[in-house]
Amino acid sequence: MTARTTAAHGVRGKADAARAKRAVLIALDWGTTSLRAYLFDAAGEVLDTRISTAGIMNLPVPAEEGGFDAAFDEACGVWLAQGSALPVLAAGMVGSAQGWVSAPYVETPASEDALVASIVKVRAACGVELAVVPGVLEPGALPNVMRGEETQIFGALGAQAGAHAVPVSRPEVQAQAAAQMLIGLPGTHAKWVVVEGASIARFYTFMTGEVYAALTAHTILGRTMKRPVVPDTAAFLRGVTVAREHGSAGVLATAFSTRTLGLTDQLAADEQPDYLSGLLIGHELAGLEAVLARRDVELAACAPRLIGADALCERYRLALAQFGCSGAQIVHRATERGLWRIAVRAGLVVGAGQTA
Amino acid sequence: MTARTTAAHGVRGKADAARAKRAVLIALDWGTTSLRAYLFDAAGEVLDTRISTAGIMNLPVPAEEGGFDAAFDEACGVWLAQGSALPVLAAGMVGSAQGWVSAPYVETPASEDALVASIVKVRAACGVELAVVPGVLEPGALPNVMRGEETQIFGALGAQAGAHAVPVSRPEVQAQAAAQMLIGLPGTHAKWVVVEGASIARFYTFMTGEVYAALTAHTILGRTMKRPVVPDTAAFLRGVTVAREHGSAGVLATAFSTRTLGLTDQLAADEQPDYLSGLLIGHELAGLEAVLARRDVELAACAPRLIGADALCERYRLALAQFGCSGAQIVHRATERGLWRIAVRAGLVVGAGQTA
Repeated sequence: MTARTTAAHGVRGKADAARAKRAVLIALDWGTTSLRAYLFDAAGEVLDTRISTAGIMNLPVPAEEGGFDAAFDEACGVWLAQGSALPVLAAGMVGSAQGWVSAPYVETPASEDALVASIVKVRAACGVELAVVPGVLEPGALPNVMRGEETQIFGALGAQAGAHAVPVSRPEVQAQAAAQMLIGLPGTHAKWVVVEGASIARFYTFMTGEVYAALTAHTILGRTMKRPVVPDTAAFLRGVTVAREHGSAGVLATAFSTRTLGLTDQLAADEQPDYLSGLLIGHELAGLEAVLARRDVELAACAPRLIGADALCERYRLALAQFGCSGAQIVHRATERGLWRIAVRAGLVVGAGQTA
Repeated sequence: MTARTTAAHGVRGKADAARAKRAVLIALDWGTTSLRAYLFDAAGEVLDTRISTAGIMNLPVPAEEGGFDAAFDEACGVWLAQGSALPVLAAGMVGSAQGWVSAPYVETPASEDALVASIVKVRAACGVELAVVPGVLEPGALPNVMRGEETQIFGALGAQAGAHAVPVSRPEVQAQAAAQMLIGLPGTHAKWVVVEGASIARFYTFMTGEVYAALTAHTILGRTMKRPVVPDTAAFLRGVTVAREHGSAGVLATAFSTRTLGLTDQLAADEQPDYLSGLLIGHELAGLEAVLARRDVELAACAPRLIGADALCERYRLALAQFGCSGAQIVHRATERGLWRIAVRAGLVVGAGQTA
């Protein structure tokens, strides 16, 4: 174990051995900049988690020198050494053209069974075989792609009847929820996904997180900004409101108000980061509202599930409320749930309630 | 003269002296990253031009150590040494809070006379006094500011009856043109300005150029791009069309298609830069169309004047045509014309046709 890998549990030794005996699955969420490894028991509970910075673009040694093997050993070697041969499932950019093995996209509408049928295997140098989940492609004039999110989405569906489901009071919302579900995955490349009949029907990608980083670090807007000590929710919501009310001019125009409101003493330096964040997320939601409306779906009538970092999801929940969408709920542990669910579906493990 | 300053005319010595004798005005377009100095004769013709990289954020020595004087001497010293005392007019960021002297904004509606009345003077170490043109502010919930463009705009108005005016055939366009004029200034922070009754009535800023630079240099979109040998007009127009047809999703969504069209072999690496350029300019024009429509002005019925680099203006002319706006015309030498026009109005020189 190097400094780059951290275990969620500090206790090692006997506890490790005990966990390893109960383990039935190793599952990996292997993205561009990080690798998260989970050890599951037969009930689908996570026994142990190991988090590494060895994303596919950040391997400990180059890929052609065995970088994937090295990262895998570093993250999971301790588990593999202690237990019997465990099945391994992996999702995310590890299955991209730049990954360990290319797992070609499954096209929308993409069911869980279609994903499972397109799993691609790769054998590690240590002899272990990894099953790699494919991504999803929505073809068309403006194609969309995802890798890793498909697993989280099926994890969120798994949570549907669980402790995180929130009762829905309005009948029209209930009717819509039965027919389709809207799932948001905020982040660098935020995704909004429409699930219909337990399949990923269509989705949209917004470069909100990455554009925010580029604007603050590499344009004039960042020059007058000062990070606030604590996030400024009022400034954030002001940005959302501006995007909602003046959105037709487009974000190329409204973004400049971060500067001009500052120049005219209407927006303090330490309000500017959250104001711009609100502007961008507001434009994202205005765009989402527009694309949903093209299919006669009203954003305000949706009860979206949100998957991602808690603080960011909470921002989206507040911003959605500005759009009249008050039923958003945050889904926790969607990645772990999704990995387990797909592993069961793929026959790598026997699911709870099933007989061997 | 250092390597950082270049003269438009290579001939020095006697020719310089002859020009200096006929000179009546020095006028400066002094921005953030460059300083352009013009020497005018009594007919308002440019005798000589000197271009320097000594913008206000790029002075040869820091401002507090006499950086503005040093840049001014470097650019204009040769003219000042040879001629009699010449009046000097300057426009642009030199009048900002970070400039040589702060020339506070004039609010819209801003006439030429209002600009002249708010000129601020600063005396150089060499004793010469500079008259600095103020910028323009449009107050409101989303304020807009300009510095330097106001001078170009009045220069473009000056060109109205000149060789660059294009006959307008449609009666409704003629009627609108008489009431108001739309002027576009493409670039880092593109401006679209509505002139009514010879005043700057309102304007909009789009961060198109700067966002393009940030997206190509600092996001995933740039990673798969390859600069084409010659600009790819077809890819550019494809981007414009996508923005026009799918614009409601917003640029945060459509920008990602640069990547996904590449991933799905529908957009070659060397088509991606111009495609993204077309997307952003298309979103800018869609935003412009929307804000004009809020005041019942139809973009397609406008005959905008374009001020800026020829190649970029030509791109905008093509993009505007996609929006049904076919009457755009490029105005040349708007900066020189505007500086001269304001100098005459301010009484720094006697205009052609006037008596001393």
